[in-house]
Amino acid sequence: MEIKFCSNCGGNMKQGIPHGDDHMRAICTQCGFIHYLNPKVVVGCIPQWGDKILMCKRNIEPGKGKWTLPAGYLENGETMEAGAARETLEETRGMVNITGPCRLFNIPHVNQIYMMFRAELTSREFGPTPESTHVQLFQKEEIPWDNIAFSVIHKTLKDFFSEKHRGSHSFEIKTMEAPLPHG
Amino acid sequence: MEIKFCSNCGGNMKQGIPHGDDHMRAICTQCGFIHYLNPKVVVGCIPQWGDKILMCKRNIEPGKGKWTLPAGYLENGETMEAGAARETLEETRGMVNITGPCRLFNIPHVNQIYMMFRAELTSREFGPTPESTHVQLFQKEEIPWDNIAFSVIHKTLKDFFSEKHRGSHSFEIKTMEAPLPHG
Repeated sequence: MEIKFCSNCGGNMKQGIPHGDDHMRAICTQCGFIHYLNPKVVVGCIPQWGDKILMCKRNIEPGKGKWTLPAGYLENGETMEAGAARETLEETRGMVNITGPCRLFNIPHVNQIYMMFRAELTSREFGPTPESTHVQLFQKEEIPWDNIAFSVIHKTLKDFFSEKHRGSHSFEIKTMEAPLPHG
Repeated sequence: MEIKFCSNCGGNMKQGIPHGDDHMRAICTQCGFIHYLNPKVVVGCIPQWGDKILMCKRNIEPGKGKWTLPAGYLENGETMEAGAARETLEETRGMVNITGPCRLFNIPHVNQIYMMFRAELTSREFGPTPESTHVQLFQKEEIPWDNIAFSVIHKTLKDFFSEKHRGSHSFEIKTMEAPLPHG
């Protein structure tokens, strides 16, 4: 998102390095207000029901028509755990208890941090929502591995099942690199 | 930070709930642009040198004159580990290797997520900077516990030393509540 006008006074912006700073920022030519752009936090979870996990088929871009885990932007005033449970409710109508941290991803090329939790569905109630055309429980072998919306979700699921196979869960921080250009 | 003018077209803003959303947002009355405000990520570390840790005395508000661990806002395009090392360099002139995650804090009342890492100084070189009047190594008993700038830093240090005493480090997510009003 480019900042063309100052949100404080409506003035025109210029790019520059403020005094004492070492990054280029959008600075207002009129009132001097500095606009900082920082990474956003995405929170989500792996909702478990017995040996199955709950996934949703996206009804919105990006990744429309592909499968994902419930996840979305953390809101102001919200804990990460509350945000992950809220996104799960919004995208799947499923209620979860967040049981622990699973993976934290740096995704620097899109200015995002992804925090994925392990979670347990509190009942077998779930279903489609404005954001998801299908919401479905999958055993590991049933997961549509070739039709997953985001590489960070693919990685989360692979790690989750390999730890589950090993019989112990851990927490790790990983970095997703920008995909190589085609051609 | 209140959004008074649209950063896209300079138009006046109104508060409202966009279609398909359930949160109040700042919406442009002229071009319809929606401005989202999301939590910011602060990254920092506990720089270790033998049995001592490196702290800095703040030269800027908030908490000017009080002691803290090096930490600051994660920048776009940066991993959390790189951000923590950069902040350490900027605030203490010390170079660190990030060795692992220590604590992740929800601080919902100030719309922040704090990620604190364990780290090791790569040399004994450090010193004051524009952001820190003093930079100093402390053994646990020497830490100015009553003069620490932020409760999240106090908690990080308490947890770190209690785990060190136990002989094993873990990772945990915690939530800092708003302080009770005085009086």
